[in-house]
Amino acid sequence: MDWPKQVTIKEVGPRDGLQNEPLFIETEDKIAWINQLAETGLQHIEMTSFVNPKWIPALADAASVAQGIKRNPAVTYSALIPNLHGLDRALSACVDEVAVVISASEMHNRRNINQSIANSLSTVNDICLQAASVGKPVRGYLSTVFGCPYEGEIALGQVLRLTEKMFEMGIYEISFGDTIGTASPVQVEAVVDALMQRYPAEKLAMHFHNTHGMALANIVTSLRKGITIFDASLGGLGGCPYALGAAGNVATEDLGHMLNQMGIRTGIDQERLLSAACFIEEKLGRALPSHALQIVHGGHMA
Amino acid sequence: MDWPKQVTIKEVGPRDGLQNEPLFIETEDKIAWINQLAETGLQHIEMTSFVNPKWIPALADAASVAQGIKRNPAVTYSALIPNLHGLDRALSACVDEVAVVISASEMHNRRNINQSIANSLSTVNDICLQAASVGKPVRGYLSTVFGCPYEGEIALGQVLRLTEKMFEMGIYEISFGDTIGTASPVQVEAVVDALMQRYPAEKLAMHFHNTHGMALANIVTSLRKGITIFDASLGGLGGCPYALGAAGNVATEDLGHMLNQMGIRTGIDQERLLSAACFIEEKLGRALPSHALQIVHGGHMA
Repeated sequence: MDWPKQVTIKEVGPRDGLQNEPLFIETEDKIAWINQLAETGLQHIEMTSFVNPKWIPALADAASVAQGIKRNPAVTYSALIPNLHGLDRALSACVDEVAVVISASEMHNRRNINQSIANSLSTVNDICLQAASVGKPVRGYLSTVFGCPYEGEIALGQVLRLTEKMFEMGIYEISFGDTIGTASPVQVEAVVDALMQRYPAEKLAMHFHNTHGMALANIVTSLRKGITIFDASLGGLGGCPYALGAAGNVATEDLGHMLNQMGIRTGIDQERLLSAACFIEEKLGRALPSHALQIVHGGHMA
Repeated sequence: MDWPKQVTIKEVGPRDGLQNEPLFIETEDKIAWINQLAETGLQHIEMTSFVNPKWIPALADAASVAQGIKRNPAVTYSALIPNLHGLDRALSACVDEVAVVISASEMHNRRNINQSIANSLSTVNDICLQAASVGKPVRGYLSTVFGCPYEGEIALGQVLRLTEKMFEMGIYEISFGDTIGTASPVQVEAVVDALMQRYPAEKLAMHFHNTHGMALANIVTSLRKGITIFDASLGGLGGCPYALGAAGNVATEDLGHMLNQMGIRTGIDQERLLSAACFIEEKLGRALPSHALQIVHGGHMA
């Protein structure tokens, strides 16, 4: 099998990135940042989360952000939705797409979503029905696929069972999350092989965190098996507030750089991406971990 | 093809790492550090370089280091040798093994070694003859294999021609260097495929720098093709003083962690490795870039 010719990067920084930040980024800065992201060539941006602001105060301005951004018709703007109330708010704010999340680990699901997996499946099913009735596509996250901070390794059978249930609900694509960044290429091959035997690549996305620096290695392993959709977060922002030690997502600009070097098309302008990374880094007031930003700051050339 | 069951990591931190540091690490600290490295399970340590101290003052104490360390019989202690004079000094200091370097790029060779490639080949041949006469094995570095800061991409034919010449001189193993950290997995596959068609894996090592965060991705790509020997540098130390923007080598502890997660044996004790990384980090007085050290400092658990 050849390397894929083209890859879609889905930007999750405004949601998965910012939700973990102790600093509240002003609504107008979030809007400016998302507008910058929309001009980089990215086709998919998860712009916020309509969870209860009590749980994620950093994203308490979800509706204002969704309504304040300038919509680029080439971009799909999605938002994470925890329940029907969140869906109502999101639909009022005109999201293009709905994202839902279930954890493959019972204990992580209870701590992250405060429900059993069975209850989450029921909630997600309600969201899918309601979203379908208004013509909004639903994207699913299955988290802790490669390991859970509380339960350790997750059985592949559990991953496949939940995958099937989520697709049966009408979810068009599932993003398989290495929430705590412990996946190894051997694990990734096993999971991707099992998924690719059952589903077409167009329905499968991978979501790697870079805790141990293995995110690009896991992406290359997935690419080699035919996966063509990856989540990433500008600057390497992110992490899960309920999983201790979960470092940021793979950085969008580092992934973009690698794919460029590999001759794989992404449609993304690296310079605009870097400029947007510098913008949010300045707003956060701390150095973000991407290699591309370190090269910018170090005045390196390579 | 299955993943390899076992991998050899060759530690180049004391040479490739320290040579680039503006701070002179005291001889006794170098000795203490190398002694720590020798107790981690590493079987091969490049301990210094016998180049003219005028060129690399950081390693001006090569002989004192080589003579001051406690020799662990399970470890091969090598040193980089630029010429016959350096070889004499190294042999007096009882190195186990000699390392030589040639660049695949004419311009990089001239700037790095101050010779044409033709002259370097002749020098290396002299070193090989002399080393053979006293029974010392010679390991070769071929640098800028995947790209040169001055010439850009390097033709595969040039890499193969120099590889053949180096093996003809009796060099037992060649380490193929991504000196500036620009190699992509696509390039790595092409080079490794060409090499594996011609030579057994036991003669081939890969040496990746992590400028753009791609080192582990390139290692995984090499592993998948059957490569089982990798150079690494504790803490992610390193870089080439004559190649602007050449960030550190892949960090030994991050590589060790990934291989552990993959179930690939290295024989290395990660805790001892991390403790040695903290030691040299403290002596250098600056944060080193490995992910494992960031986890230690951040108090993360994952």
